[in-house]
Amino acid sequence: MLKLYYTPDTCALASHIALNEAGADYTIARISFAAEEQRQPEYLAVNPKGRVPALVTDAGTLTETPALLCFVAQMFPASGLAPLADPFALGRMQEFNSYLCSTVHVAHAHRVRGSRWADEPDAIEAMKRKVARNVTECFDFIEQRMFQGPWVMGADYSICDPYLFTVGLWVESDGVDTTRLPKLLAHRRAMMERAAVRRVVEIEETPLPA
Amino acid sequence: MLKLYYTPDTCALASHIALNEAGADYTIARISFAAEEQRQPEYLAVNPKGRVPALVTDAGTLTETPALLCFVAQMFPASGLAPLADPFALGRMQEFNSYLCSTVHVAHAHRVRGSRWADEPDAIEAMKRKVARNVTECFDFIEQRMFQGPWVMGADYSICDPYLFTVGLWVESDGVDTTRLPKLLAHRRAMMERAAVRRVVEIEETPLPA
Repeated sequence: MLKLYYTPDTCALASHIALNEAGADYTIARISFAAEEQRQPEYLAVNPKGRVPALVTDAGTLTETPALLCFVAQMFPASGLAPLADPFALGRMQEFNSYLCSTVHVAHAHRVRGSRWADEPDAIEAMKRKVARNVTECFDFIEQRMFQGPWVMGADYSICDPYLFTVGLWVESDGVDTTRLPKLLAHRRAMMERAAVRRVVEIEETPLPA
Repeated sequence: MLKLYYTPDTCALASHIALNEAGADYTIARISFAAEEQRQPEYLAVNPKGRVPALVTDAGTLTETPALLCFVAQMFPASGLAPLADPFALGRMQEFNSYLCSTVHVAHAHRVRGSRWADEPDAIEAMKRKVARNVTECFDFIEQRMFQGPWVMGADYSICDPYLFTVGLWVESDGVDTTRLPKLLAHRRAMMERAAVRRVVEIEETPLPA
């Protein structure tokens, strides 16, 4: 049995969509950042990093989005979410997801989590001022160099698609001019037409009962 | 045929060691950051990101360390560098490598590449002041929570080991008190006893003929 810990408006959305696309049997648990639940002992026992996503499996708990996405593809091979037997094609996917986690997500995080990397308010403001430029540069690169179309890797929907969709939802708040990203916007629309994506987005956007 | 583009003292060392451990047939090309070769058109044609490592394969070029490490393990399964058929065990490795690239390497990079995330010299200095604390926190977490011993994942040497070794070589310059990291230091010594590691370190440390 699988249990996904997630928080709305975070990168956990990518793993949530992948599980749903794969037809996995799983449950979910929402962690409220507003209530700082990610720093409570109960959640730190699940994921001592105090971040989301975390996926509890029968073998143990996994964290980090690229790892979870690959795990889902491998656990549910019939879903065809990754070309598991083709080292180069799989390498391309891991390259893309690795770029999202280590460069794109990090570029974005300097707007909302600058205090991770400096204490002084002036420095945190200085980081914020550079976010729009950095995130624009990342998405220009994706748009012009990496994105194949109609899906990230071309004809086949894969574990790269929910991840791009997720990180791509932040570009407007990061101050990116989206008129330069027609492929990203078309990809977002195509994602929103998928039943699994609509289901998961609706679940994550629904307030929990008080 | 495989060709690895690397620069000494960068995370490319991890992929370089993995290729050597796997017994791969490969060539290498050194990119000098001092001469800014990574920004020259010749190298940008190989890797438009202008970073190392880049691995040219018969099918195309791959970048991003976690992707390269998994690719090497999958191309050379006899090397036993990853439990390819076990989704959870492979997930654990990807989780570890993903943490190194998206959190640990990023924490370190704020000392040497702060200008990526802010323009003002004061902000860049503010980032530098927090690096020792952030990198210490990362390595405390690895030491206490992730590292199994004697290798990262326990009894079996894997694609996590050259990556930890590589990123772990930066802790002294990042200002980390290594007396709190006995497992990391023992791992470094065990790595330096491996023939492949010694070969690769010697190659990377040897100046090129003028």
